[in-house]
Amino acid sequence: MADLNGFEHFAAEWLPRLEAEMQAVLALREPDVAQHYQMMHYHMGWADESFQPGLFDTGKRIRPLMCLMACAAVGGEPATALPAAAAVEILHNFSLIHDDIQDGDRTRRHRPTLWTLWGVPQAINVGDGMFALAYAALLRGKQRGVGDARLLAALERFTTCCAALTEGQHLDMGFETRESVSVAIYLRMIEGKTAALLAASLALGALLGGADKTTEDALYRFGRHIGLVFQIRDDILGIWGDPAVTGKAAGNDILRRKKSLPLLYALEDPRVGPLLHDRMGQAISPTDLPGLLDLLAQTSAQSYAEKQAAHHHQMGMAALAEALGPSAKGAPLELLAMGLLERQA
Amino acid sequence: MADLNGFEHFAAEWLPRLEAEMQAVLALREPDVAQHYQMMHYHMGWADESFQPGLFDTGKRIRPLMCLMACAAVGGEPATALPAAAAVEILHNFSLIHDDIQDGDRTRRHRPTLWTLWGVPQAINVGDGMFALAYAALLRGKQRGVGDARLLAALERFTTCCAALTEGQHLDMGFETRESVSVAIYLRMIEGKTAALLAASLALGALLGGADKTTEDALYRFGRHIGLVFQIRDDILGIWGDPAVTGKAAGNDILRRKKSLPLLYALEDPRVGPLLHDRMGQAISPTDLPGLLDLLAQTSAQSYAEKQAAHHHQMGMAALAEALGPSAKGAPLELLAMGLLERQA
Repeated sequence: MADLNGFEHFAAEWLPRLEAEMQAVLALREPDVAQHYQMMHYHMGWADESFQPGLFDTGKRIRPLMCLMACAAVGGEPATALPAAAAVEILHNFSLIHDDIQDGDRTRRHRPTLWTLWGVPQAINVGDGMFALAYAALLRGKQRGVGDARLLAALERFTTCCAALTEGQHLDMGFETRESVSVAIYLRMIEGKTAALLAASLALGALLGGADKTTEDALYRFGRHIGLVFQIRDDILGIWGDPAVTGKAAGNDILRRKKSLPLLYALEDPRVGPLLHDRMGQAISPTDLPGLLDLLAQTSAQSYAEKQAAHHHQMGMAALAEALGPSAKGAPLELLAMGLLERQA
Repeated sequence: MADLNGFEHFAAEWLPRLEAEMQAVLALREPDVAQHYQMMHYHMGWADESFQPGLFDTGKRIRPLMCLMACAAVGGEPATALPAAAAVEILHNFSLIHDDIQDGDRTRRHRPTLWTLWGVPQAINVGDGMFALAYAALLRGKQRGVGDARLLAALERFTTCCAALTEGQHLDMGFETRESVSVAIYLRMIEGKTAALLAASLALGALLGGADKTTEDALYRFGRHIGLVFQIRDDILGIWGDPAVTGKAAGNDILRRKKSLPLLYALEDPRVGPLLHDRMGQAISPTDLPGLLDLLAQTSAQSYAEKQAAHHHQMGMAALAEALGPSAKGAPLELLAMGLLERQA
């Protein structure tokens, strides 16, 4: 795809440097505590279960790429933002380790999760260690010539984001036991769980790249909006996505009873909601799916979700234009955002 | 005790202000996420299980008091160090939440632990939230007039300490499955688990109080040494403490098979070690205790531990004198340290 050249070129140049930066932060310490760090390396996709170096699925490193691109977009040298890029990716990975324990997930990226291999107590502690090292990563900004006031502002942003992540996680875990979840609370949850870190990644890149406060805030809003679109599109695809493209069963999120935006919206429908609530409370097999999808179709759940996504997409792009002016058009940042937002799977 | 007047006066003045500082940092947010913060309040001893405000055992707040006293001792206004004092105490409490999960402990300070009341997933997340808010606490130094460079140095110290805590915890958890634990690794463990945070508390207080680097480092060493003495004395009392004073059974740590310094030292004794190892591998009842204590007495375990404690005590007091000069004598900091070190329970 010729369109993506700018993005792919950027990623090819900076992803290896990002990995090197993170490897420097998560480097092995004395032999006595080597295993603590080796477990981090396993989780990051740098080592196998026996701690032999290898190349495994690392995830897409979307957040740090956004961070580095934001730095470049405001005229900064991306290397200056490597400490922040490493920090957001290490923080994201810490949160995945604890998520996997909290959700009881046994695999991630086609490998056993940390807790299944080394037990819950060690996995909690490895996550805590990576949380601390995310801060250590950001503090390396000093060595890249970031001024004290700017670095402190970055630490403030990062800390606010860390607290927001735990708020989002708090709400998400509560959904399992809550009798009913409102659309408003759901949006508050994805705000914390998905949007806050993407927004912070962009703001930190801009901040370390030397942007003024107005530009930094606009990029923060860009990140927040595309984070929300990303999650809402994920919810739409989870119900109406093409199984041939998504690789998941049709109506997958309905079968899994996932409390996602369209379903929660339909449950608030005064006409259809109560019936849908009853039906979702019973056992659901694939043969029930057409009936449930029909109930959803009797509400404006799909168009509501599409409209929410379109709204945040538009707001996000407006914030990007506000931040970068005409140069936003065709910038790697826009291309990456478009790729994220227009995905079908 | 007339001796302690200086210390008690200081604590009476500053403990309420410390609580107020921490309450400001851990203040309730919007109603949607209130419970996340209410669980923190429960753990801190500010609320009951129904989140009604109350006064519960909060622990002794030793670390933040040390931090504030270090600030005063170097000529600073203790209020300047309140952000650091709050940060170390919130960090300590975060680590207790995760510790309780990791050890499966159902009670702490005579109340049910967080995970027994609200489940492991929420308890992990409450800990993570407090970890983030410990940083938020420290960042409030800006509002107390701490300069940028000094605040960044404090954040570096704090981050190094956070990582060290997880290293200590890693080693401690490993002891349960390790066939043998050397004295060297044990000392490395208490270095991370106990000494690092006490040392950082003192260094941060000095740093925010305006101390020069030499004084700050000397107070760091003071904290490290007294942290080590504190733990080693705890180990000695756990075996040879007077039950009438400690409130625990004689030889309590032997009965619990606790891998503490005297026992590990005795296990390394070429003559007695192998036999002791066999005996510790079998069921232990109180009637076995005299025999086991006799085996310990055939080694120099007790005097070794006493000598280690005395060594670190001496080194700690030397570091304190180095930091404060003649004013160290009788300062609240010395009195608190003496109280900690000379305890019999």
